[in-house]
Amino acid sequence: MPADTIAKTNPGRFFEDYAVGDVLAHAVPRTVSGGERALYHALYPARHALYSSDEFARACGLPASPLDDLAAFHVVFGKTVPDVSLNAVANLGYGEGRWRVPVYPGDTLRSVSEVIGVKQNSNGKTGVVWVRTRGMNQRDEVVMDYVRWVMVRKRDTDAAAPDPVVPELAKAVEPASLAIPQGLDFTGYDFALAGEPHRWGDYAIGEQIDHVDGVTVEEAEHMMATRLWQNTAKVHFDVGARPDGTRLIYGGHVISMARALSFNGLANAQMVAGLNAGAHANPCLSGDTIHAWSEVLDKAPTAAPGVGAIRLRLVATKGHAPFDLRGEDGKYRSHVLLDLDYWALMPL
Amino acid sequence: MPADTIAKTNPGRFFEDYAVGDVLAHAVPRTVSGGERALYHALYPARHALYSSDEFARACGLPASPLDDLAAFHVVFGKTVPDVSLNAVANLGYGEGRWRVPVYPGDTLRSVSEVIGVKQNSNGKTGVVWVRTRGMNQRDEVVMDYVRWVMVRKRDTDAAAPDPVVPELAKAVEPASLAIPQGLDFTGYDFALAGEPHRWGDYAIGEQIDHVDGVTVEEAEHMMATRLWQNTAKVHFDVGARPDGTRLIYGGHVISMARALSFNGLANAQMVAGLNAGAHANPCLSGDTIHAWSEVLDKAPTAAPGVGAIRLRLVATKGHAPFDLRGEDGKYRSHVLLDLDYWALMPL
Amino acid sequence: MPADTIAKTNPGRFFEDYAVGDVLAHAVPRTVSGGERALYHALYPARHALYSSDEFARACGLPASPLDDLAAFHVVFGKTVPDVSLNAVANLGYGEGRWRVPVYPGDTLRSVSEVIGVKQNSNGKTGVVWVRTRGMNQRDEVVMDYVRWVMVRKRDTDAAAPDPVVPELAKAVEPASLAIPQGLDFTGYDFALAGEPHRWGDYAIGEQIDHVDGVTVEEAEHMMATRLWQNTAKVHFDVGARPDGTRLIYGGHVISMARALSFNGLANAQMVAGLNAGAHANPCLSGDTIHAWSEVLDKAPTAAPGVGAIRLRLVATKGHAPFDLRGEDGKYRSHVLLDLDYWALMPL
Repeated sequence: MPADTIAKTNPGRFFEDYAVGDVLAHAVPRTVSGGERALYHALYPARHALYSSDEFARACGLPASPLDDLAAFHVVFGKTVPDVSLNAVANLGYGEGRWRVPVYPGDTLRSVSEVIGVKQNSNGKTGVVWVRTRGMNQRDEVVMDYVRWVMVRKRDTDAAAPDPVVPELAKAVEPASLAIPQGLDFTGYDFALAGEPHRWGDYAIGEQIDHVDGVTVEEAEHMMATRLWQNTAKVHFDVGARPDGTRLIYGGHVISMARALSFNGLANAQMVAGLNAGAHANPCLSGDTIHAWSEVLDKAPTAAPGVGAIRLRLVATKGHAPFDLRGEDGKYRSHVLLDLDYWALMPL
Repeated sequence: MPADTIAKTNPGRFFEDYAVGDVLAHAVPRTVSGGERALYHALYPARHALYSSDEFARACGLPASPLDDLAAFHVVFGKTVPDVSLNAVANLGYGEGRWRVPVYPGDTLRSVSEVIGVKQNSNGKTGVVWVRTRGMNQRDEVVMDYVRWVMVRKRDTDAAAPDPVVPELAKAVEPASLAIPQGLDFTGYDFALAGEPHRWGDYAIGEQIDHVDGVTVEEAEHMMATRLWQNTAKVHFDVGARPDGTRLIYGGHVISMARALSFNGLANAQMVAGLNAGAHANPCLSGDTIHAWSEVLDKAPTAAPGVGAIRLRLVATKGHAPFDLRGEDGKYRSHVLLDLDYWALMPL
Repeated sequence: MPADTIAKTNPGRFFEDYAVGDVLAHAVPRTVSGGERALYHALYPARHALYSSDEFARACGLPASPLDDLAAFHVVFGKTVPDVSLNAVANLGYGEGRWRVPVYPGDTLRSVSEVIGVKQNSNGKTGVVWVRTRGMNQRDEVVMDYVRWVMVRKRDTDAAAPDPVVPELAKAVEPASLAIPQGLDFTGYDFALAGEPHRWGDYAIGEQIDHVDGVTVEEAEHMMATRLWQNTAKVHFDVGARPDGTRLIYGGHVISMARALSFNGLANAQMVAGLNAGAHANPCLSGDTIHAWSEVLDKAPTAAPGVGAIRLRLVATKGHAPFDLRGEDGKYRSHVLLDLDYWALMPL
């Protein structure tokens, strides 16, 4: 076909299209409603009470039950795909993520990213791009922000390499800097309604929890989820997009599935407050059965009444394989899908 | 793995964990919205006008279109699974069910069950537990209640058998005791908008209706439905949970599918008011094509203007096999999935 | 089974049941909510900003973000199926469609059709029926209307043929007669938020756009979509309904998928205002990968500030096959699924 026939479509950005300091105002703002919440419950075995019941959320000092924090993340993230990762070879990592303001039905979200790092790879064909993305609501409040870095193809392998800028990122979000939703108060927390008796003080650093349950995933489910967040990456939808004809499952689908499975043992780790790090260790495909386990990495008090912070490693695996993360070579085992490091808020 | 790693997860209750009089306050309250209603319409061919249109419901004296009665049932039921049927071998039956107050978008539901019977089986390995479950809204009104009995594994086969208590259950809910939603009035009922001309008086006791249509079911659909009701039973989701690698479809999915199919011939059996009995005769699996037929078992007047009660047997089958319920041995034929006995409210 | 057992079910109408001038008031009115909108985004890669964001819609002069125009079409269309196309052999065409009033969450839709043409086919076994369908909201405003013609089986091949009446339909909706939503104003249109810089003036008549992306479709998805619109045609749901055991995908699913894919290159063709013609050229089945391309057929000004009308051919194909519509014999190529001719509203 003649070249001009694709002139109006978005070819995505290539490595040489990013420069440190560039600001990318992502398109397609999105208003969420109870519909997104219901779909989140249909797509994931999500049972955290604060995100299930307006009454429970009110008893915790919030005006209503917010949209799941990860659903908010997916909406913010989805908007960045056409500008950041359409030509990405790999999604390399996340860091410095903070959930700042809960998202409620009726809110409208949009996303803006700033390029904070670029570094060409030694092969000359690709480079790594770091962006800091902020999601904002209709009152221009930042609902969350995080750093992501991706490996992106060069358009022209002969193009000169930019001066490398590698941002220094915190290994983990300082617990003192976590944003606690205004009014959050766990002093009257109802453990029976929440589903488990274990409070912040019952978890020890180093403790590992096998979440036991597994979910076998289907093409229709991950595609509906990924579309819901308006994530347009071809590899999730088109059997012609990858050489082996499989549809790669959006990494965020695995994150949400694992987080929902972690209810069984961490039912009171209600709110996700910080994203310290994350790696999609191996691809997930339709037919895989996702299991999850967690490890307590750290604990910290917060200024909010009755609220403690807990730092958790959340690992998703293909099949039931708890606590078996890396091989002797230090690499992720082939059954590991996700290794996520986050802060959650729990009742003391 | 060390035993303490599963200390915080829910292993479910075993037969010896139930005693008559125990009250189980189930976890994870749930606020419903238009999202749950839309998903109900996406998952089932539901067409009853009272649950489809706010305007139609208002013309029938209700403030708005309620959530489908079976969706309300599923939400109430789903909460009981972690406490009642996580280790269940079989879901044996239902009875004495009454829908008391319609559920509207914005309502928050929770469930409480009381153990009303226990009886160890002669094999010493399992026992039957009867519970009466009440679903309540945010005003502590009982929206529905019903009895369910399940066969549950013993944790320790050497544990002593409890004194057997077998509750006496009504064969059917007395029609005079059915709860009619406040304000319900079918005197101005619009049969054309509802889709069929057949009124209460047009149905004869003993009449059988073949609902004709069939729906082939998919894994993604039944899992989304079952998750939507926060039903966590492993057998529905994990190909590793059953020896043959199949995922058993939640019996409630078959109930909703059959009820929706029954629109064709029973479009005016608008509201489900009573659950007399129910048996999941054979397992349903992805790929099965569900058909349904009904039989009029009884009829009764009600105190509400223009409203009659009709008692229906609703049978779901695998493939089109109307009116063929039991073999010569008195057992359900292998194509029978569901035999449900319920009261519905119809315009006179 | 005895014939009277199906007496209460709807056998659908046959050719001889239609006479010019008949008015069919279709059943099952439907209230839509944010749930339908969320499901639309989960089922299709829909990204047009006006249908995604209340804030964006308000900036364009509307009170909020409407339900996608095609979702409104599907709701209106679905109601007609039991009365128009239950015994249809083929859905032959559409024409003279106008979207007149946007549909918002909370609106209740119903449909009425008038028979405007009948013509028996020469084989004596089937005939063509033309109906003009109007969808109305709870204020009795016509939200859209369109003509559809279908080939319907005769019940009795010996029945006499009616006098043929073939309505004269406009080849295309006159642009001056397009209904512009009250208040629509694109003078402050935010192209960055909408996702593409191309305005009405940037498109040339004859220009072709390859929308590049593809989506592989699944059984669960098309059945959920089709049920959501309460379309009851058996061929979409029951593997026993067609000789080869496949489930035919509802043509409207292909329309919505293609329209959503057309965002990539036509992100600013925000509102669908007119339906000039449409043909489902070949059947679509689960596993097919849908791609889309467009051709600019015409352009016209409108009376609304900053708003231009653009007439587009939207073609959906199985696999990536842009611009290859018909063979030398003038017939659609076998990879062509849909050939749709519509008017959209764009910022000048």
